[in-house]
Amino acid sequence: MQRVYLDWNATAPLRVEARAAAAAALDVIGNPSSVHGEGRAARHLVEQARVEVASLVGAEPRDVIFTSCGTEANVLALTASIEVAGDKAPRGRLLMSAIEHPSVRLGHRFPASEVEVLRVTADGVVDLADLRARLAARQGTGKFRPLVSLMQANNETGVIQPISSAAEIVHEAGGLLHVDAVQSVGRISCDINALRADALTLSGHKLGAPKGVGALVLRSKALHLSDPAIRGGGQERGRRAGTENVIGISGFGAAAAAARRALGNAAVAMAGLQERLESGLKEISPEVVVFGANVERLPNTTLFAVPSVRAETALIALDLEGIAVSSGAACSSGKVAPSHVLAAMGVPAALALGAIRISLGPTTSEDEVDFFLKAWRKLVMGLSKGRRGLAA
Amino acid sequence: MQRVYLDWNATAPLRVEARAAAAAALDVIGNPSSVHGEGRAARHLVEQARVEVASLVGAEPRDVIFTSCGTEANVLALTASIEVAGDKAPRGRLLMSAIEHPSVRLGHRFPASEVEVLRVTADGVVDLADLRARLAARQGTGKFRPLVSLMQANNETGVIQPISSAAEIVHEAGGLLHVDAVQSVGRISCDINALRADALTLSGHKLGAPKGVGALVLRSKALHLSDPAIRGGGQERGRRAGTENVIGISGFGAAAAAARRALGNAAVAMAGLQERLESGLKEISPEVVVFGANVERLPNTTLFAVPSVRAETALIALDLEGIAVSSGAACSSGKVAPSHVLAAMGVPAALALGAIRISLGPTTSEDEVDFFLKAWRKLVMGLSKGRRGLAA
Repeated sequence: MQRVYLDWNATAPLRVEARAAAAAALDVIGNPSSVHGEGRAARHLVEQARVEVASLVGAEPRDVIFTSCGTEANVLALTASIEVAGDKAPRGRLLMSAIEHPSVRLGHRFPASEVEVLRVTADGVVDLADLRARLAARQGTGKFRPLVSLMQANNETGVIQPISSAAEIVHEAGGLLHVDAVQSVGRISCDINALRADALTLSGHKLGAPKGVGALVLRSKALHLSDPAIRGGGQERGRRAGTENVIGISGFGAAAAAARRALGNAAVAMAGLQERLESGLKEISPEVVVFGANVERLPNTTLFAVPSVRAETALIALDLEGIAVSSGAACSSGKVAPSHVLAAMGVPAALALGAIRISLGPTTSEDEVDFFLKAWRKLVMGLSKGRRGLAA
Repeated sequence: MQRVYLDWNATAPLRVEARAAAAAALDVIGNPSSVHGEGRAARHLVEQARVEVASLVGAEPRDVIFTSCGTEANVLALTASIEVAGDKAPRGRLLMSAIEHPSVRLGHRFPASEVEVLRVTADGVVDLADLRARLAARQGTGKFRPLVSLMQANNETGVIQPISSAAEIVHEAGGLLHVDAVQSVGRISCDINALRADALTLSGHKLGAPKGVGALVLRSKALHLSDPAIRGGGQERGRRAGTENVIGISGFGAAAAAARRALGNAAVAMAGLQERLESGLKEISPEVVVFGANVERLPNTTLFAVPSVRAETALIALDLEGIAVSSGAACSSGKVAPSHVLAAMGVPAALALGAIRISLGPTTSEDEVDFFLKAWRKLVMGLSKGRRGLAA
C-alpha cells in the first residue's frame, strides 16, 4: 500500500545526504577522544559536522555544542548559571511564552517560583507588550538579569515568532535570549546573528538527520555555560560529557549542509503545497479553522480543525488509508488532552480536540497532498452521512 | 597498511549484528511517540531493543531507561531523589570509590560536601572495610540513607570489584547501590540480581553498538527516579525526555543479544589472548608491571608499564606501526596527567606516566596480539639501544 508521510514536524525521514553520511560512519571505529588514527578519523567526522551545523545558522564552529536531542539542548541552555564575559552572577529569572515545547516548560533548571509565562495572542504570537511590561516591572529593583526563552516557530501551529524584536527588548533589559529553533531551522532563515539570539537550540532529526542528536549554539564565545547538564569527561570543551554519537553527528552535518543548500527552493515549494492543501480543505469544509492563518507561519505546517470531526477518529481513519498525520506534538500523542498551545490561544477545548496537524517536507509532492485531500473528503463526507443517518 | 585495534575499552567496532540493525533502522521514518504506522514501526524497534538489553542483565524490560550514553546514565542515577516504594525522603549522602569514571566523580547531582570517596587497595580493589566503617560511623545518627556507586570493573586496570559483597554491606546500612557496568557488561557475567545492584549503568558502544546510546537499568519497579536529568516529553515513562535515538537503540539491542549469546566463549578466548600478551610482555621486559595482576581482572584488559618507557612516546610510535592502544581512559586522552586510578592505587607518578592499556575484543586474533608484541619489542629495543648510545 502507498504510504504518504505528512508528519515532518514529528520527525523527518533521513535526507539522502544524511543517510550516506550515517552509513559511512558505521564503519568508523574510533572514539573521537582517542589520539590514535582510529580516534582521529572519528574526531574528523565530528568536527566536519560542527562546521556544517555552525554554517547553517551563521555561527562559529567552536560555539556549537552537540547534544543528544533538542530537548537536552534546551535543558542545557536554561540554567541560571550562564556567564557572560566571566560575570558569574546567576540569572535570577526565566521568562518563556505559554506555547513553548515541554522540554522548555519542564526541562529548565530554575526553581518554579522564578519562572514567568508570557501571554500569546489569539493568533498564537507571543505578546511583546506583555514581555516588555514584565521586564519593566522588575527594572530598578536591583540588578535584574533575566533569561528569556522563545521558540522561532511553534511546532503545532507553525506560527513564526517576532524573535529579533523580542531580542531587542530582552537585551535592553540586560537579559539573554534563548531561541528554540527546532522546528524552524532548515525551513526558514535561521541566522543566530540576524535573530540576535544569544543561544539557539537545534534538533537533527527535524531536518533529516538521525534521531538522537541536537545542538546548542552560542552566539558569542563570551557566553559560558558553567553548569553543564551532563558532566564527566571533557568532551565538547567541557560543556557536554559523554562519548559523541558519531553516526548521528555525521548525519546531522550532512543534513545541515543539504538543508542550507536547498533552503530557498524548498520553502517556495512547500509554500505552494501549503496553499494547495489549505484551499482544498476550505473547499471540502467551508467552516474549517486554520490556526494562525492570519499571521506568518512556516511554509510546511497547517494545523486545522473542522468542528464536527474529532482528531483521534480522523487520525486512525487516515492511517488506515496510508496517511500519517498528527493530532499535535508527537511528544503528547497518545494522551487525549487538548493542546497547551491552542489553550494559550484561547481556542475552546471542543474545537482544539479536533486539531489535526499536516506538516510537509522538502520531498512532499502535489500528488501526496492530493492523496490526502481525497482521503479527507471521503472521511468528512462519511461522517456527515453518518450523522444524517442518525438524525433520520 | 594493516591496522590492529587494541583499544576496545575506549570504544568497540560495531558488531556485525549491530551494524545490520542500525543500517536497517536508517530506513525507519517514524517518531516512536507517533501513533500512526510509521511511528509504531519505530516504537517496535525501540521496544524490541529494550527486551534484549534487559535480557543481557537479567532485568525486566520496563526497568530499562535508554539514555544517550553511559555518562548520562550515571548522571541520571546519582541523584538524592531516588524513591524506594514511594518513600520520598532524599538520599543524604553519596559514597563512591576513588577509581570511578569521571561521569560518576563529576556527574553526580549531590552537593560536594555530601560526597565521600572510598579507598582502594594497592591492587585497585575497593576497600570494603573502609565502606563498612564509613557506613557504621553514621549509623544511628538519625535515618541514614546513603547512595553508593561502584563500578563492576575498572576501565583502566580491568580490576573486577566485589560488587555483591559491597551490596550486602550497603543494603544492611539501608543504602542503595548503583553499579557502573560500562566496561564489564558483555565481557563477564553481569546480572543485576546476582550482583544485587539496585541500578546498573550500561553503555552501548563498549559492547559493539553505535556510540551515543546507553541505559540505566533498575532492579525493581519499586525504585523511582523522581528527578530526571533530561525533562520534557513523556518518553521512557517520564524518566528521560527527548526523541529516542532509534538507530542507536536498535544497534544496542542487537549488540546486547549478540554479546549475550557469545559471552562464555568470548571470555575464554580473550583470557587466552590476555595470557599470551602478558607472557610476551614479560619476556620482552622482565621488569614490566601489570597493574592489578594479583587480583581478578576482565579477560580483555591489560594495563602495564615498563619503567623506562613513556606512554605518550610509545602510543605515537605504535600508531605509526598501525596499532591503536591507549594510555588510559579515552576520556582523559590528550591530557598528560597521571591516571587518578593509578594514583589511588599508590602507583608513583613516574611509573603511572608509562601506563599503556591494551584492551581486546571478541574478534581480536592471536595474529593481532603477536603483531603488537613484535612492534613492542622493536620499540623497547630501540629505546634501550638509544639510551646505550647516549650513555656511551
